[in-house]
Amino acid sequence: MTTTATATQQFMTTEQLLKDWQGHRNLTRRVIEAFPEKDLFEFSIGGMRPFAKMAVELITIGGPALKGIIENNSEAYNEEAFAPKTKEEILKKWDEETEVINHYFRQITEERFQETFNLFGQYEFPVYENVLYFIDNEIHHRAQGYVYLRALGIEPPFFWERF
Amino acid sequence: MTTTATATQQFMTTEQLLKDWQGHRNLTRRVIEAFPEKDLFEFSIGGMRPFAKMAVELITIGGPALKGIIENNSEAYNEEAFAPKTKEEILKKWDEETEVINHYFRQITEERFQETFNLFGQYEFPVYENVLYFIDNEIHHRAQGYVYLRALGIEPPFFWERF
Repeated sequence: MTTTATATQQFMTTEQLLKDWQGHRNLTRRVIEAFPEKDLFEFSIGGMRPFAKMAVELITIGGPALKGIIENNSEAYNEEAFAPKTKEEILKKWDEETEVINHYFRQITEERFQETFNLFGQYEFPVYENVLYFIDNEIHHRAQGYVYLRALGIEPPFFWERF
Repeated sequence: MTTTATATQQFMTTEQLLKDWQGHRNLTRRVIEAFPEKDLFEFSIGGMRPFAKMAVELITIGGPALKGIIENNSEAYNEEAFAPKTKEEILKKWDEETEVINHYFRQITEERFQETFNLFGQYEFPVYENVLYFIDNEIHHRAQGYVYLRALGIEPPFFWERF
């Protein structure tokens, strides 16, 4: 099979990607829950951020990015838009963003996923690459949360349990 | 837009997914390289495996899984098939598997990605879900390697640099 033939083959539908992402988000939610309140905001290894800061990063990327894509708005990324003081606040916002992501994601067409967009006025890539990046970034930081939990003597949720 | 309409929309081509995966594999290769030889095989946090063990897991999943899918072979997963003693051995095998992955991945058709296959005689899911899992699993373990490097006082490669 030539590369040209493969290039026209599709890997999965947008709905399958959304289900995969929301499965990851479910797991990340359980990782947030697994942290003791104090450690969520304070525990760190090797000068890295506490897990609460990573969770805030994830919350301020996904929904706002999809909204920007649909509204053709390249406004800058703003992590300060959300400054929670408790685990409960983080979890509440997490659940709100679940609906925001479903709402905007389902408005992105197959054609749009292949178009280049200057996300947050800074990340100029095809939309599908930016969406993959959101998920990869979430897996990346959540895995760092796994190490924090292990170092705290807490068993993290199973990586393969998503719903 | 209804869910039914969205379900027929495609997210990306198989070649785009392959490029994304090989980009991740390039980054993981640089993370392996960043470890001092001794720490690669011995350093650990919270009772987790050293990064060499995680790299061996990744090496013994990707290529062998794709070969199994193409050959319709549900032989069990065998992590013991590769027991390297040096970083050089791991990197050499890593590069060999790059070609194995390209070779078998490009033989999987759009239809096949949607079919269920009992991978390693144990993971019975649509092929595309298993392939996503390989990549997610790689990001997950590599991120744990990032924490190990930070704990060792070593700056890891940038997460967004793939090629």
